Amino acid sequence: MDRLTLREVGLRDGLQLVKQWPNTSAKKNWLALEHVAGVRHFEVGSFLPTARFPQFADIEVLVDTLSKLDGAHSAALSLNERGVADALKTSVDEIVCVISATEEHSRANTCRSRAEAINLIKDASIERSRLAPEKIITVGIAMAFGCTISGEVVPREVLCLAEQAYSAGADIVGLADTIGYAGPSQVADLCRGMTRLNPGNPLLIHLHDTRGLGIANAASAIDNGANIIDASLGGLGGCPFAPGATGNVVFEDIVFLCERMGFPTGIDIDLLTKARRFAETSMPDELFYGNLSRAGVPKNITWAA
Amino acid sequence: MDRLTLREVGLRDGLQLVKQWPNTSAKKNWLALEHVAGVRHFEVGSFLPTARFPQFADIEVLVDTLSKLDGAHSAALSLNERGVADALKTSVDEIVCVISATEEHSRANTCRSRAEAINLIKDASIERSRLAPEKIITVGIAMAFGCTISGEVVPREVLCLAEQAYSAGADIVGLADTIGYAGPSQVADLCRGMTRLNPGNPLLIHLHDTRGLGIANAASAIDNGANIIDASLGGLGGCPFAPGATGNVVFEDIVFLCERMGFPTGIDIDLLTKARRFAETSMPDELFYGNLSRAGVPKNITWAA
Repeated sequence: MDRLTLREVGLRDGLQLVKQWPNTSAKKNWLALEHVAGVRHFEVGSFLPTARFPQFADIEVLVDTLSKLDGAHSAALSLNERGVADALKTSVDEIVCVISATEEHSRANTCRSRAEAINLIKDASIERSRLAPEKIITVGIAMAFGCTISGEVVPREVLCLAEQAYSAGADIVGLADTIGYAGPSQVADLCRGMTRLNPGNPLLIHLHDTRGLGIANAASAIDNGANIIDASLGGLGGCPFAPGATGNVVFEDIVFLCERMGFPTGIDIDLLTKARRFAETSMPDELFYGNLSRAGVPKNITWAA
Repeated sequence: MDRLTLREVGLRDGLQLVKQWPNTSAKKNWLALEHVAGVRHFEVGSFLPTARFPQFADIEVLVDTLSKLDGAHSAALSLNERGVADALKTSVDEIVCVISATEEHSRANTCRSRAEAINLIKDASIERSRLAPEKIITVGIAMAFGCTISGEVVPREVLCLAEQAYSAGADIVGLADTIGYAGPSQVADLCRGMTRLNPGNPLLIHLHDTRGLGIANAASAIDNGANIIDASLGGLGGCPFAPGATGNVVFEDIVFLCERMGFPTGIDIDLLTKARRFAETSMPDELFYGNLSRAGVPKNITWAA
């Protein structure tokens, strides 16, 4: 793994709530264009009932598409036992499960306690060992910095959950600022706690730019040990709990951040902007955010080597 | 001075390039609404020929308006001898002069060398001592992190210029990322250099969000000694050299950043959002940016005490 891995989550988080989405051919083109630009890690959907989530019905096709792109790595969400079982049958590289930082959110969102959610991770790990030991299991802790139901979250509880997730068999644990509560100080504290908990293990950060601090939080995460950063082209991925709020941190701007911080991304901004333009035309009703794509890379700048 | 001072520069930087601007009565209302929200520092215009810059023709009225608002502090730009002379005749608290980080930009932008620009500061300081010794002279170093003409800027040259500006009589020296070149690492380096140069002296940072890193750069500046932060309501203040680029960092989002970093701003977000709504109606052709004003302050959050 490079010092920093950027994960494109637009085709998962970005499509979670939209009424209109690209068809399979457009999704494949989107992936191909970002791959040509240098992006290698993609979360491409959720293993969910296709009747309720038709936007993810083509997940197996996308996973197969990625398996044929040089160096590409595929991830997909599995929110329950059925999702895990379905994922294990495919060629997906990484299965992402989600647990909530607070008991209140866990029950409201999934009708499970946090302990039950940890049990799901345990079961998933056992099945993974049995059926597809090469697959990675990642656990994202939603609302890790603040919760729509219970407000501020105690960092110690998040670290305790992370420890349980590792014990249950998770390879990677991620911190998600699902609705934009965090500032750089909170991100720094929790990232440092996570690196103390499991030194040397990859640390994933999933940030939303709900209140404008997304990129500042990413900078803080990078400074404090995070090395897998989720982002989406144009910041796709609004949250139902914060109407009008932007979604994930903007992939293009994160690339510029990383390069300015001295971390080579291997990504060509012009080709990435081309991918963004394609994504925009494939989802004409969605607002695409981000500044770099408008202003372009500044003149005579030293890109990280 | 508080540990952090937030300066509203929208009525100066935000009006620099627009074709349409609020009338004097609307500007006064804008100032009053932000003052009620808790904002105390305002840059309200430039002392420039009114024939070429009619948007700043009412600068004396605005300076007088601020002098009557409890605790309010007024600043205005003076770009040449005439501007300084005019400013010294008014009740403005702070005169802001600008020098360019690079020789190329200095000559192209002002037809002066950097040495000549420093001489202007010297003359301004002498006149200030003679006519209005209570006024503050601030020098902003434009293009401090990168230049539209010569590209990347050598930090040592910026520090050398800052030293000359202090020697010429500047009370405060500010670093401006005029067109969004900087990332948090560059901001950290130069802020640390500035605090070593003049320990304990206030350090101003003026950031544009041209490429999405504005708030991350502000966080880095705050972490590394900056204590006066320029921002504008809705991020007004686009730059002519980066078409389509957003302007200054968004005031509302900076307030949220400071509070999340533990620095009390004394600003009421709901009242600030009200001021923003008014500013929007007074400039209907301008795009207002920023996320906090859409999403609102998160539930049950601990505001800095």
